[in-house]
Amino acid sequence: MLPERIRESLGLALSLAEQAIGLSDPNPRVGCVLLSADGRQLGAGHTQAAGQPHAEVMALRDAAARGADVRGGIAVVTLEPCSHHGRTPPCCDALIAAGIARVVVAVEDPNPLVAGQGLARLSAAGLVVELADVATADAARELNIGFFSRMQRGRPFVRLKSAISLDGRTALPDGRSQWITGEAARADGHAWRRRAGAVLTGIGTVLADDPRLDVRLVPTARQPLRIVLDPQGRMPAAARILQPPGEARIIGPGRADLPALLADLGSQGVNEFHVEAGPVLSGAFLDAGLVDELLIYQAPVLIGEGLPLASLPQLSDLGAARRWTLIEAAPVGADLRLRLRPV
Amino acid sequence: MLPERIRESLGLALSLAEQAIGLSDPNPRVGCVLLSADGRQLGAGHTQAAGQPHAEVMALRDAAARGADVRGGIAVVTLEPCSHHGRTPPCCDALIAAGIARVVVAVEDPNPLVAGQGLARLSAAGLVVELADVATADAARELNIGFFSRMQRGRPFVRLKSAISLDGRTALPDGRSQWITGEAARADGHAWRRRAGAVLTGIGTVLADDPRLDVRLVPTARQPLRIVLDPQGRMPAAARILQPPGEARIIGPGRADLPALLADLGSQGVNEFHVEAGPVLSGAFLDAGLVDELLIYQAPVLIGEGLPLASLPQLSDLGAARRWTLIEAAPVGADLRLRLRPV
Ligand SMILES: NC(=O)c1ccc[n+]([C@@H]2O[C@H](COP(=O)([O-])OP(=O)(O)OC[C@H]3O[C@@H](n4cnc5c(N)ncnc54)[C@H](OP(=O)(O)O)[C@@H]3O)[C@@H](O)[C@H]2O)c1
Ligand SMILES: NC(=O)c1ccc[n+]([C@@H]2O[C@H](COP(=O)([O-])OP(=O)(O)OC[C@H]3O[C@@H](n4cnc5c(N)ncnc54)[C@H](OP(=O)(O)O)[C@@H]3O)[C@@H](O)[C@H]2O)c1
Repeated sequence: MLPERIRESLGLALSLAEQAIGLSDPNPRVGCVLLSADGRQLGAGHTQAAGQPHAEVMALRDAAARGADVRGGIAVVTLEPCSHHGRTPPCCDALIAAGIARVVVAVEDPNPLVAGQGLARLSAAGLVVELADVATADAARELNIGFFSRMQRGRPFVRLKSAISLDGRTALPDGRSQWITGEAARADGHAWRRRAGAVLTGIGTVLADDPRLDVRLVPTARQPLRIVLDPQGRMPAAARILQPPGEARIIGPGRADLPALLADLGSQGVNEFHVEAGPVLSGAFLDAGLVDELLIYQAPVLIGEGLPLASLPQLSDLGAARRWTLIEAAPVGADLRLRLRPV
Repeated sequence: MLPERIRESLGLALSLAEQAIGLSDPNPRVGCVLLSADGRQLGAGHTQAAGQPHAEVMALRDAAARGADVRGGIAVVTLEPCSHHGRTPPCCDALIAAGIARVVVAVEDPNPLVAGQGLARLSAAGLVVELADVATADAARELNIGFFSRMQRGRPFVRLKSAISLDGRTALPDGRSQWITGEAARADGHAWRRRAGAVLTGIGTVLADDPRLDVRLVPTARQPLRIVLDPQGRMPAAARILQPPGEARIIGPGRADLPALLADLGSQGVNEFHVEAGPVLSGAFLDAGLVDELLIYQAPVLIGEGLPLASLPQLSDLGAARRWTLIEAAPVGADLRLRLRPV
């Protein structure tokens, strides 16, 4: 019975963690469920905005608000509790102080310098510490793929989004691209944008489409930073991307070095980075091997002549093409959402 | 109990009918299961090659070979039994003569001039006649989509196959297209080719790829007719498409009228027609609105510059694009098979 309750609680903790999307950045999305020793749910919570409490503290507060006694209880949490003082006191200390007896953790802290320290601290304080099954660990890692990337590689997870036709066109030859895909795909695109700490486009797209690039088709507690690469100072002062809500940043004049830009954004706490540009800048990211995920909305239309997904150098032969793995093909309205990662 | 047995038998009859793919053309793919009045299976069969017995006669022979007495029994069949003398005597007569008491039919004959006549003949002879549920009728129709097209529109069902990259390219700029997709997709492509009464390509593809266009990566009892459109007599005598197995036909010199070609092939008994051409001929079929299904194998690679899926006239705006409905997105090896039909 108890293992079953713990498994259910891991699932619940993961779905709580999902509620931290669009809220907790740069902190990871974490969910926590507190159980009594015999498996009754006492409290639950997820990470709040930066500087606000983490999941464990939210769950303890929730239990307290319900008048539940958590002493001797179990904490089920989707990421190893932190053991260092950041903007908030360490979650390990909060769990220990509350008298929790057992902690089940979906996945260890991604930072190789920190990994295991939270678990060790809990063990040293006499708590029983366990890791969840591999599938749960994978789900917890996937939910924080950008945080893991930043901790392990010092740079954000880069997702390149494109709306294309069946024949791979992203715009008519004159640059018109609104709209290739349907409303459902556009709203879905905003849901992915919301995950990002920053959204990037090129001046070419700003001049052609004057996009806002904010998150508005889905609810969100925060807006990603919007960045435009504008090497030659062509940015119109009235561009919509410069208007609220959220912050916008122009990089230029001068050509940005893309790997340096990513490192920089990583150090500024950007976990997921969303590239939504035209063929020139998309091609530059792809050619440099900097794309961790392709997010493609494919509309069921043939356009004929038009702009490509990416301007890429000529392939010497078909075998030389970089290969991707399709990790998802899901209908979104009349369109198809494809997600691919490098092989 | 009996309704359940009949439902199972319809499923079995449909899977028998599938075995007639690559065998029965130009006759429809039909399966038949014979049951005793209390639901025991007595015999089963499917349509054989043209001029050979139809499904009902095969099932009656199967029952006879097992020494089963079908008098008073039930015939479950995926298409209305024929009532006219073709190359074989009418199946209605065979069922009546065998003493069958009840006939369950998945779907009526598609030929509007013939539809219902078989059922009427059975009723007149005192048999109880029933139609199956809508889902079974749809499956039976789908299996014979080309036969239905030929009977109802006087022309084959046109399936246009293309192997493309994520960015919609079908070849490198110099024309090399072997191979964009993987082995599994190529074998799957042969399975769709096998469904066709005829396969078409253009002289451009023959000159670039020298393809065989026969069915060899999957077993088949017959080869589709292979047709090349060659308006200017550029066909090399040594082209592989002209070699056995199967028959090849060059259309030219002179430019073929595509609707007339389809009508002609329809009158010659081609049910499904498989277009596997380059962008020029694919574009001609698409632009003329002659494509009933797109069969696209999309490889998880970006090619950059290259040949398009189809050369199409410039769109005035994105809203003017003809829309398709995605009816399937299925992984085949590392590639994705997309099937679309006109909205
Ligand atoms: N379907 C879609 O999903 C989608 C999405 C976005 C855009 N689009 C379409 O794409 C078209 C615009 O294409 P685009 O390629 O011009 O736009 P882009 O890729 O957004 O912008 C390209 C510009 O970015 C600048 N840039 C700055 N740093 C760069 C670097 N490291 N590498 C390369 N470029 C850098 C260059 O500006 P300078 O030339 O000033 O140096 C370059 O011309 C529009 O028609 C738009 O509708 C389609
Ligand atoms: N990835 C794939 O699935 C795939 C499949 C097939 C081919 N390909 C590639 O496609 C390239 C060949 O392209 P392509 O466009 O030249 O080949 P194509 O479409 O197979 O052949 C085009 C030729 O067909 C002739 N034709 C006859 N009747 C026609 C009509 N009614 N309308 C239009 N054309 C008619 C014309 O010949 P004339 O010019 O002599 O008048 C025309 O140039 C090759 O690189 C090949 O590798 C790729």
